[in-house]
Amino acid sequence: MKKKVALLIAGCGVYDGAEIYETVLTLLRLDEQDADYQFIAPDKPLDQVINHLTGEEVKDSQPEGAASRNLLVEAARLARGDIIALSTANPEDYDAVILPGGFGVAKNFSTFAKEGADCSLDSNVQAFVQAFFQAEKPIGLMCITPAITAKLIKPGILCTVGDDAAVEGAMASMGSLHKSCSVDEIVVDNNHKVVTTPAYMLANRITEAKAGIFKLVDKVLELA
Amino acid sequence: MKKKVALLIAGCGVYDGAEIYETVLTLLRLDEQDADYQFIAPDKPLDQVINHLTGEEVKDSQPEGAASRNLLVEAARLARGDIIALSTANPEDYDAVILPGGFGVAKNFSTFAKEGADCSLDSNVQAFVQAFFQAEKPIGLMCITPAITAKLIKPGILCTVGDDAAVEGAMASMGSLHKSCSVDEIVVDNNHKVVTTPAYMLANRITEAKAGIFKLVDKVLELA
Repeated sequence: MKKKVALLIAGCGVYDGAEIYETVLTLLRLDEQDADYQFIAPDKPLDQVINHLTGEEVKDSQPEGAASRNLLVEAARLARGDIIALSTANPEDYDAVILPGGFGVAKNFSTFAKEGADCSLDSNVQAFVQAFFQAEKPIGLMCITPAITAKLIKPGILCTVGDDAAVEGAMASMGSLHKSCSVDEIVVDNNHKVVTTPAYMLANRITEAKAGIFKLVDKVLELA
Repeated sequence: MKKKVALLIAGCGVYDGAEIYETVLTLLRLDEQDADYQFIAPDKPLDQVINHLTGEEVKDSQPEGAASRNLLVEAARLARGDIIALSTANPEDYDAVILPGGFGVAKNFSTFAKEGADCSLDSNVQAFVQAFFQAEKPIGLMCITPAITAKLIKPGILCTVGDDAAVEGAMASMGSLHKSCSVDEIVVDNNHKVVTTPAYMLANRITEAKAGIFKLVDKVLELA
């Protein structure tokens, strides 16, 4: 039987949502490996809208401000409309879960962007991922997402964001075990079935990100 | 010397902008072939904003309506911010131009979505692509984009949108020569250096779109 993977994404666009290239490379590899997938996102307002041309925040007093954009609706762009709300998703329907990166994870799935090691997590995102961990199903995290592993899953998990002193410090203080990793490799915690790769924390070219992401998808499917 | 390709995109999202998977697959193949690329988009308001979850148009009376979204700013999401305005782009800087598909091409680059064979084109998009044609540089068009080939370049060019009677009828009345084509293949007009592939006009899976798009990129680079 085909394996089915939950793709939990945090919007559409690296600076306020899910990293687009990471997400597309993930589903490309899933499809190449003949696995099924389902896009899933929380139905709530975006924390911030970032103008991706200037890098500046769009203020809520402007018509296109954050209050006017919904995470699920924007994430639907990345899914060609084929996406379901996190509130309606059942972890039992899937063999594994993968979370691509992007600042949306640090802004919408958690408060890591603002609060670092003191961050809190979206409780629905946390509960969904926890259900996979409790069922001993594999969890794939990439880019900035492994930064919140200790709170998303539990402390004591071996994972990577590549090589970033500030993020590693925050991860250590939350209780994760960080292992440095090149962009084309993965870190596997076999005991906890958690697979991580740096992706655009380190990638300068899409082919670099591809190398690590394809390995992550392959390992997640192997563990599923 | 590395070849450099202009990637002219119509926003970010299949229903009102550039098709995301087509665009990412194009730059993935360009990078795999060690070619450089530059994202380019017109700096103007979106024609429509479509809610990608419901498929419905977001009206301008709503805060997130079309008037509040700019094509270049939204396209910047697909480019991780590395994009330039069409008005500042010089065709002489590039060896080829590729236009991914998505309804943005039929709404923002032309009025094809509303007016079919009677459509008019964005004059800046037209002038940019014409410069490549005049300089005998290759032009790659995918998905719905080949529908406007006759007006974008000139009548009498052999091209494909796959197999769609209504679109083919409009293309014929504008003067294009349509050739049916499967999703994993390309149509090449060697005399005019125009390469086309159906992509998401036919694709049901991203691996299907990949097959045709990778062939298109390879042929465009070969002709450049």
